[in-house]
Amino acid sequence: MAVPSVQVVEVGPRDGLQNEPVTLDAATRTRYVAALVDAGHRRIEAVSFVNPKRVPQMADAEAVMAAVPRRDGVRYAGLVLNRRGLDRALDAGVDEVNVVVVATDTFSQRNQGVSVDEGVAAAVDVVQAAAAAGLRTTVTVAAAFGCPFEGEVPVERVVDVARRCSVDALDELALADTIGVAVPADVTRRLAAVGEVCGAPLRVHLHNTRNTGYANAVAAVDAGVVALDASSGGIGGCPFAPAATGNIATEDLVYLLSRSGVETGLSLEPLVGVTGLVGELLGAQPPSLLPKAGGFPGPASGRG
Amino acid sequence: MAVPSVQVVEVGPRDGLQNEPVTLDAATRTRYVAALVDAGHRRIEAVSFVNPKRVPQMADAEAVMAAVPRRDGVRYAGLVLNRRGLDRALDAGVDEVNVVVVATDTFSQRNQGVSVDEGVAAAVDVVQAAAAAGLRTTVTVAAAFGCPFEGEVPVERVVDVARRCSVDALDELALADTIGVAVPADVTRRLAAVGEVCGAPLRVHLHNTRNTGYANAVAAVDAGVVALDASSGGIGGCPFAPAATGNIATEDLVYLLSRSGVETGLSLEPLVGVTGLVGELLGAQPPSLLPKAGGFPGPASGRG
Repeated sequence: MAVPSVQVVEVGPRDGLQNEPVTLDAATRTRYVAALVDAGHRRIEAVSFVNPKRVPQMADAEAVMAAVPRRDGVRYAGLVLNRRGLDRALDAGVDEVNVVVVATDTFSQRNQGVSVDEGVAAAVDVVQAAAAAGLRTTVTVAAAFGCPFEGEVPVERVVDVARRCSVDALDELALADTIGVAVPADVTRRLAAVGEVCGAPLRVHLHNTRNTGYANAVAAVDAGVVALDASSGGIGGCPFAPAATGNIATEDLVYLLSRSGVETGLSLEPLVGVTGLVGELLGAQPPSLLPKAGGFPGPASGRG
Repeated sequence: MAVPSVQVVEVGPRDGLQNEPVTLDAATRTRYVAALVDAGHRRIEAVSFVNPKRVPQMADAEAVMAAVPRRDGVRYAGLVLNRRGLDRALDAGVDEVNVVVVATDTFSQRNQGVSVDEGVAAAVDVVQAAAAAGLRTTVTVAAAFGCPFEGEVPVERVVDVARRCSVDALDELALADTIGVAVPADVTRRLAAVGEVCGAPLRVHLHNTRNTGYANAVAAVDAGVVALDASSGGIGGCPFAPAATGNIATEDLVYLLSRSGVETGLSLEPLVGVTGLVGELLGAQPPSLLPKAGGFPGPASGRG
């Protein structure tokens, strides 16, 4: 029997840094991305092509992409919301685009200034143009498990958005628990429902805002996702709960998966090293637990 | 179909406070226990009858038990290691005893000064004497998922210890992930294996040391445990990794279970209130996340 495996998409340079109070310049972000590559990462969401006036932490994506190390087998993704973002992404030379669509109108209007219908139309347009230009494409459905403004998000709503985004050119569809409210039963149910209308492989983007993120990761792997997002040290926070923690942490996720017999191609020691670097760059200790506790059995830190 | 339910055993006053650097006096611990009762808890591990020279945080168990509120339906447990502890527990008037046996010799010797065989013999003796005196009995197998000294703990070792402790007088058997290394597959496998040799209902004691605690809780509930331990705010730490976090947090567990459709009889708002009190008493913010993030949908704090 083949060893089960799943890909970890490192989103620290994008969703992580985007939600940190400290803004790192392009050279520093490049240094972080290079450290991720050295640590074994093969798929990194390195930049965002959103308006830097709205998200100053993500400014100068072009400068980051011009300086990151290019190695065989390493793919860089950029977040894109619309055609203008795609044009920047193409110029900057990313390998793939992650197009975000929000599942609820209130959040979509506040976040991107468009309705869900307009967001879906823009996403389909971007996906088709990106694929035509030779890029791999992901659509991420944000607020797929709950909305900070509308509360509960019906499964049918998420399925409908996923169905409309599932054009032939789409390589992958991600469900995002943007505000960290999901529980494993939600993950199981929504992935199954979306899988019925979407032919592309599925991925999840989880936050550990309420300590359910790792349980949700297990449910997602059991449901057959091909990829999981995570950030070094769990950096990122949540814009709707300023004191809350961020994405699930790469090293804690890899500990969990590795001890569960699921292969990721990553090992703990270098990941903990990168989290140490990120903590220095941000001037704050990231919320992940493995660097404090150490691996088992044996090292991978344990700073006591 | 009946709504699934599970009992949450609040262990903050015992395993939580036992591993905190601040020592609270008996009156303060009594105040905490009373707040737990007011918050809806019905089963509380309130005290430990270990040698106060070895665990000063747990001194004056008798004073705590003499002062806690006595209400119908509220059961207080005391941790006991041997016959001397049981005699104190009986005098103090607990409703149940939790007898700890360690699964590995090195840890058992260091923690309790006895071999595993001696520990099992003492546990069986205490269980039988406690039951004869009318108390409910639990045996907790510590280091059931990994040992800080010996590393991996074979499933067969845990099953053997569980089998030998499963005398007729035993009301419940708990597997403890004392150092927080388990993953859900371990929980599933070990509970199933122990269930084959133990007629008593099963319970788990989980730590979130490496962020796997809540995923493990889901696996335990799926495996049919009747009870899960948790501590207010996740207080407790780990004596073997001083910077690490403690037990799974009661309010985060209840959020997870409640959103999963599993009934606990507890609601979030008062639990978050108790965690606020514990934070004040300890002079440090407990590691749980729900008080920072808030419930969903709607309140249960969110201190931003």
